[in-house]
Amino acid sequence: MSRKSKGINAERELIHLFWANGWSACRVAGSGSTKYPSPDVLAGNNVRKLAIECKVTKDIRQYFTAKEIHELQQFSKIFGAEPWVGVKFNNVDWYFLTMEDLGGTGEGHSVTLKNAKMKGFMFKELVGTLQGTW
Amino acid sequence: MSRKSKGINAERELIHLFWANGWSACRVAGSGSTKYPSPDVLAGNNVRKLAIECKVTKDIRQYFTAKEIHELQQFSKIFGAEPWVGVKFNNVDWYFLTMEDLGGTGEGHSVTLKNAKMKGFMFKELVGTLQGTW
Repeated sequence: MSRKSKGINAERELIHLFWANGWSACRVAGSGSTKYPSPDVLAGNNVRKLAIECKVTKDIRQYFTAKEIHELQQFSKIFGAEPWVGVKFNNVDWYFLTMEDLGGTGEGHSVTLKNAKMKGFMFKELVGTLQGTW
Repeated sequence: MSRKSKGINAERELIHLFWANGWSACRVAGSGSTKYPSPDVLAGNNVRKLAIECKVTKDIRQYFTAKEIHELQQFSKIFGAEPWVGVKFNNVDWYFLTMEDLGGTGEGHSVTLKNAKMKGFMFKELVGTLQGTW
């Protein structure tokens, strides 16, 4: 399966998780290829709106470009949504990180599995159906 | 140009209108072909979120199926967005109607140009930058 197909499948799986937990969610068309900033997934309920940039990796590290993060923040600020990045580590699970928790590098941002486990939110924590232990 | 291409072009034009007026907007991927309800376009600012089912027609009447309207309402209710239908009449303009203003038929809903002009909102009215005269 191509990298793109894997990404789309992972996004569809995430959409399903949202609906199964009482949220609306959808994939955004042409994310990354239109002239306007756009996230990969938009999810919402009556209280919160989430804009999510999604990646799937078989590695233990995932990279986001500075442009991806800037556009995610720009879209979210105008739309009125919380900006999140979501990384699906193969054979592990989804982890979601806030902008503050993204590990910064000079030109972009990387998320390691270790950092994701330490700082990231699992899906149930993201949608607030599981109380965190912090 | 195919009917589908015309629809996508009209949606892109609408996305552009939103951004040009200080809103975020995006097209939804696979609208009408996924197992979950989804609108064609999602737009938002810090105050309002709009879920829009879009059609473009060269006729003076546009039809929406009961299923399309039901799914639009279902998505919007869960997401926390206002449900709208938008009809771009060729050589005329976009008109936006609320669920209440959709003319009902037995099995679906039709929007005539006459009704759209009478009850519909122009884009500037939809986004609230033009005061209505009612």
